[in-house]
Amino acid sequence: MPRHEWISFLTDYGHDDVYVGVCHGVIARTAPHARIIDVCHNVPPGSVSAGARLLAKAAPYLPPGVLLAVVDPGVGTDRRAVAVLAGESVLVGPDNGLLVPAAEALGGVRGVFTLTGHKPPTSATFHGRDVFAPVAAELALGLDPTLLGPVVSADSLVRLPKPRVQVTKEAITGEVALVDTFGNLQTTVVGDASAMPVGARVMLMFGGRRRVAYVGRTFADVSAGKLVLYVDSAGYLAVAVNQGSAAQKLGVGPGTEITIRR
Amino acid sequence: MPRHEWISFLTDYGHDDVYVGVCHGVIARTAPHARIIDVCHNVPPGSVSAGARLLAKAAPYLPPGVLLAVVDPGVGTDRRAVAVLAGESVLVGPDNGLLVPAAEALGGVRGVFTLTGHKPPTSATFHGRDVFAPVAAELALGLDPTLLGPVVSADSLVRLPKPRVQVTKEAITGEVALVDTFGNLQTTVVGDASAMPVGARVMLMFGGRRRVAYVGRTFADVSAGKLVLYVDSAGYLAVAVNQGSAAQKLGVGPGTEITIRR
Amino acid sequence: MPRHEWISFLTDYGHDDVYVGVCHGVIARTAPHARIIDVCHNVPPGSVSAGARLLAKAAPYLPPGVLLAVVDPGVGTDRRAVAVLAGESVLVGPDNGLLVPAAEALGGVRGVFTLTGHKPPTSATFHGRDVFAPVAAELALGLDPTLLGPVVSADSLVRLPKPRVQVTKEAITGEVALVDTFGNLQTTVVGDASAMPVGARVMLMFGGRRRVAYVGRTFADVSAGKLVLYVDSAGYLAVAVNQGSAAQKLGVGPGTEITIRR
Repeated sequence: MPRHEWISFLTDYGHDDVYVGVCHGVIARTAPHARIIDVCHNVPPGSVSAGARLLAKAAPYLPPGVLLAVVDPGVGTDRRAVAVLAGESVLVGPDNGLLVPAAEALGGVRGVFTLTGHKPPTSATFHGRDVFAPVAAELALGLDPTLLGPVVSADSLVRLPKPRVQVTKEAITGEVALVDTFGNLQTTVVGDASAMPVGARVMLMFGGRRRVAYVGRTFADVSAGKLVLYVDSAGYLAVAVNQGSAAQKLGVGPGTEITIRR
Repeated sequence: MPRHEWISFLTDYGHDDVYVGVCHGVIARTAPHARIIDVCHNVPPGSVSAGARLLAKAAPYLPPGVLLAVVDPGVGTDRRAVAVLAGESVLVGPDNGLLVPAAEALGGVRGVFTLTGHKPPTSATFHGRDVFAPVAAELALGLDPTLLGPVVSADSLVRLPKPRVQVTKEAITGEVALVDTFGNLQTTVVGDASAMPVGARVMLMFGGRRRVAYVGRTFADVSAGKLVLYVDSAGYLAVAVNQGSAAQKLGVGPGTEITIRR
Repeated sequence: MPRHEWISFLTDYGHDDVYVGVCHGVIARTAPHARIIDVCHNVPPGSVSAGARLLAKAAPYLPPGVLLAVVDPGVGTDRRAVAVLAGESVLVGPDNGLLVPAAEALGGVRGVFTLTGHKPPTSATFHGRDVFAPVAAELALGLDPTLLGPVVSADSLVRLPKPRVQVTKEAITGEVALVDTFGNLQTTVVGDASAMPVGARVMLMFGGRRRVAYVGRTFADVSAGKLVLYVDSAGYLAVAVNQGSAAQKLGVGPGTEITIRR
């Protein structure tokens, strides 16, 4: 197996404790040649669906290598730990749906190995440190994944439910999936910019309320403080406020159902 | 052109999404030799003036190389994208005033290139990924900046207005420019420690209120919980609370006008 | 002295200003070969005890090298600056108790040098930039620590008071030491999982209130929303809510006294 130079790393560990730093340390001790890209560590705690979406958004832009992802509310239970081959990369993490969308963004699952061959974790609550980072480091060193544990079928991987999206002639209904630092609301609806005339007026409906927005390609296509509906850089319909925060203005967050009506 | 080993990176992307990680990935794929210093990614969203000041504070301490900075409320509009030569470094970002103070801190603008030669961005809202990080990576590989696009004059660069500072015999008036994690208030006023006798009593006036502070060299020059006026590590007048937060104690933030009276 | 490849870096600087990035820059300019692990920069501002505990938790998992730690409410006063040899590593920071627990976790203090030989700092408030990062970089280059300044005795190091822990037959009383991103409450009490039968009911008492919790090895040993008492990955008793935040549910934070009664 080839060595990997790059380990891309995503978790919900946040930055208030040393969890991320400890995983960096574990990797440095085992695979000092490896270089780590911190993709994101502020996945909403325990939100596998948000982590899966964030990892899938980033995956095509990351260098081939190991993708280490840990959003793991079932840590210490009998949920499986897996390594998933996709493209030229190998994804490592819990088998709870987190890795599948990224694997698909990289061309689809080419093989799955369970990590049962790994030595028992020291803790029941920090498998990032005890299982996943060590395995990522060993894979970076060129470990043959078949040595990690038995091959299992791609079909056996846990998959997240598809996000609910409903399309009629007059309206599209989806959900707010992610909110970024700017307060931009990223929906579950894949967008088609060619079908959206810039400047068109649309109605946003959510939580019993409605607000007017205008179609734009970018934020400044509407005046400051106004709502803009656009296709974001990952290809989803999104709602922003030019020079402001849509999350704050609308008072909504992940999980809110939103309908867009012409 | 020489290769650059270092890319120093500042944005307002925050850490709640994968924007920073994706730019790291883009650079790793194009210029794997490059090493990235994350200078700051928590510039207040869209605040070009805060970003400019933070970048200028950091610039003299960064290794020569590429300085990649993106605070870009006009992304996707006709605002220019530029590369600015200064000292031994090259700054890359939007032409909205963000880069100029750092270029001046590095010895002044030596040349400006527009990035019109770059391939069209995939998205209208994430030019960090589609334009600025790719250009930074290519410059790190040694690309001649003249290949980026036409040279333009330094005078044509957008410049931010100078911060308002008013000095009389009895008082200095400026503005709170930045608030750090400690709640220290950094003003727009350049300080002169030699003119400030440690222990001297001053009056702070802001938002119709007034509070007593004492001149110090450092926080512990006043007792715990007291306000100290000092010249901060970047050379500006600043207000702190020893073992506390001045931002919280005074209830002020960026943009607040503040007068210091002897 | 051997060169060190790794500098592990912990502060209370936060990520809202350029302090961390500037220290990276200072190190890159002096010791470009050095690789930095950001262990944590969100130590609660000025909390030496929290910083000491976080550094000690991480230390055994970090690669041998320089451990650079700055939580320094006494910056600019006559508190000493020190380099502490422990294991194969050298810890650099203020002499305020921050470094000692980590040194002990690495096998104990093998030598202490004061940093009086270093050139005077430019600022009175940012010794991370002016003293500690430069010294860390020079040590990474192989500088003999005896050139930093006089040797002093290990006994002369400032030590933090031991955390209060009281154990009776029926109850254990300690304090909440840290709260992580998940809202898990990490106490000052070292835990013994073998003495804690999974599923056992315990009473948590704090701030005049009481709540039922159940002993678990991991979060999912209790149902969603319930309180679990467990031994965390650092060996301390901790309280969590499965799929939730104990800090939020109980409304407590660092410093709260907590009693666990069978």
